[in-house]
Amino acid sequence: MTFPFEISATDGAARTGVLKTPRGDIRTPAFMPVGTAGTVKALTVDQVAQTGADILLGNTYHLMLRPTAERVKRLGGLHKFMRWDRPILTDSGGFQVMSLSNINKVTEEAVTFASHIDGSRHVLSPERSMEIQADLLGSDIVMQLDECVSWPAEEPRARAAMELSARWGQRSKAAFGTRDAQVLFGIQQGSTFEALRRESSERLIETGFDGYALGGLAVGEGHQAMCEVLDFAPGLLPADRPRYLMGVGKPIDLVEAVARGVDMFDCVLPTRSGRHGQAWTWDGPVNLKNARFAEDDEPLDGASACPASSHYSKAYLHHLVKAEEILGQVLLSWHNIAFFQALMGEMRAAIAEGRMEAFRKTFAARQPVKA
Amino acid sequence: MTFPFEISATDGAARTGVLKTPRGDIRTPAFMPVGTAGTVKALTVDQVAQTGADILLGNTYHLMLRPTAERVKRLGGLHKFMRWDRPILTDSGGFQVMSLSNINKVTEEAVTFASHIDGSRHVLSPERSMEIQADLLGSDIVMQLDECVSWPAEEPRARAAMELSARWGQRSKAAFGTRDAQVLFGIQQGSTFEALRRESSERLIETGFDGYALGGLAVGEGHQAMCEVLDFAPGLLPADRPRYLMGVGKPIDLVEAVARGVDMFDCVLPTRSGRHGQAWTWDGPVNLKNARFAEDDEPLDGASACPASSHYSKAYLHHLVKAEEILGQVLLSWHNIAFFQALMGEMRAAIAEGRMEAFRKTFAARQPVKA
Repeated sequence: MTFPFEISATDGAARTGVLKTPRGDIRTPAFMPVGTAGTVKALTVDQVAQTGADILLGNTYHLMLRPTAERVKRLGGLHKFMRWDRPILTDSGGFQVMSLSNINKVTEEAVTFASHIDGSRHVLSPERSMEIQADLLGSDIVMQLDECVSWPAEEPRARAAMELSARWGQRSKAAFGTRDAQVLFGIQQGSTFEALRRESSERLIETGFDGYALGGLAVGEGHQAMCEVLDFAPGLLPADRPRYLMGVGKPIDLVEAVARGVDMFDCVLPTRSGRHGQAWTWDGPVNLKNARFAEDDEPLDGASACPASSHYSKAYLHHLVKAEEILGQVLLSWHNIAFFQALMGEMRAAIAEGRMEAFRKTFAARQPVKA
Repeated sequence: MTFPFEISATDGAARTGVLKTPRGDIRTPAFMPVGTAGTVKALTVDQVAQTGADILLGNTYHLMLRPTAERVKRLGGLHKFMRWDRPILTDSGGFQVMSLSNINKVTEEAVTFASHIDGSRHVLSPERSMEIQADLLGSDIVMQLDECVSWPAEEPRARAAMELSARWGQRSKAAFGTRDAQVLFGIQQGSTFEALRRESSERLIETGFDGYALGGLAVGEGHQAMCEVLDFAPGLLPADRPRYLMGVGKPIDLVEAVARGVDMFDCVLPTRSGRHGQAWTWDGPVNLKNARFAEDDEPLDGASACPASSHYSKAYLHHLVKAEEILGQVLLSWHNIAFFQALMGEMRAAIAEGRMEAFRKTFAARQPVKA
């Protein structure tokens, strides 16, 4: 069975709705905090849940290396292991293999790589990725294995990766089979080439997935180039299934992508920013290390329901960041996740009320993209 | 006014009761988590409160250097700054000046030192310590400035430091004056010499304080030597006032000290251990990095009310420690603070029920002191 995806309102290309899973509803557009190695960095799952996150992302690459997918399975699966009983989406591991592992070699069959932790050799095939995600980790939303080319890519290189991804999509689907309470998403590739993304979409649709991701974006092309791809790429995918833009992004990226019909996102940005003293706000990012906050008695967002946003003064956060206190990393990660969730909530409301374009314009004016 | 200290039960030398302050009751024996630089490291104040801590300790040395006591004052005082509305005890700064600052020079007048952060020069006199603690930080329990000699100390050196501490106690008292909602504790010194500790106590009592601390212990002399001092030192102090053993200690130290009549403690051990992967339990400390926990599905303490102790498996904590995840430091710090609070609660109950000696024997058998 697939997960019902009920779109309750559309506004231009934007849509809002609910993806219904046995572990709970995912309100879309949705932002998925990244729980890389079985933890959303620096936060308890209770703190994450308090921000309103409906779903987390887990990284197959990290978990297969440590503590290993087999160990997670023996300990009852990823939900039990990390104490998160709501939905989890796992990526295929392919992207991190390319970006993090020390050595990697892609063949038709699989990708072979050396662990960034201890240099040990591993093989990740579509079939092995399905086994890890669906059988061992017990993910709710499983991603096909794909090949994501770096940017910029020449057309022949982008085509080859798109075609390999399409074949790996078929093999992922065959290995995944049909399951009662888990679904499989395909991944559109093709770099910035419209013809390739069109062909990719056609091949994915022919294979048939429960949802469709946009891969190969936010890999260095920049906000403007990404928006230009998003002008056409989401529309190539089925309108009745969730569309997931992988690894994105800054708040302005999220807003522009939602306006173009994207339903789901994940990104390490809020937690990574938080660990480096940066807070995202309705007026853009601020660095709490800045001396102008040293005696600023106001909270980051007095209207927020998140304690990290509303209970602590910027002066206190400034002090924690300057003193390199762990609590500073905790509170800013927590605030940022809460801000990203609040942003998604504002967009869901804007779409439901038919004012997404006004919201987008206002937001873009407050958070200009640096050239 | 002083804070009422109501002893509800005694059992041998041990006592249990309540120190009543305008910001809330402190149940004794009490363990004070250390909030060095305005934060109990890695934990929110809500997490700390959840463990049952009635009072925190703040470090004058750290706070006077960063963010500075004057800045804390401008931001409304230490309670507001760090969002802790229960009692706070601040140390005098003297101990950290000796142990942490790069250079320091003690004269009759004051101690001059260079900051370990930026090398800047500072002077700490009894009068300045009172100003920082009582007027600027707004501490509930203020400690006199003292000189703590390192161990081992020859008698003449220990005597000189004890006598200077007694004179600084008088000056601290004079500068502190009489206050509505804050109290001042004196500090007994004298290293391991009974005659010096006796003379120290007599001089402190003559000056008159609201409570009395045992200083100069847990400075390298070891558990056995400390216990030998505690066989006589608490009894030299007034029975009707709280006795506070500074900077102690391991759970077995706390138990032996309570059995000998100590009422209050502070130590960085639970949070420092937690940041290094160590958890304290009823059967002693365990290092979560150990491979034997890799697939241990049990929590650290299923009976604990602390989520860190009862909700997460040791296998998960092992994974977090191995992966050097901040959440591992958070959860183990939280668990350890909760364990220390639970230990104090068990001792309060044992004293009230007249079975402290049995508790001490059982505990000592489970947590043997390494020779």
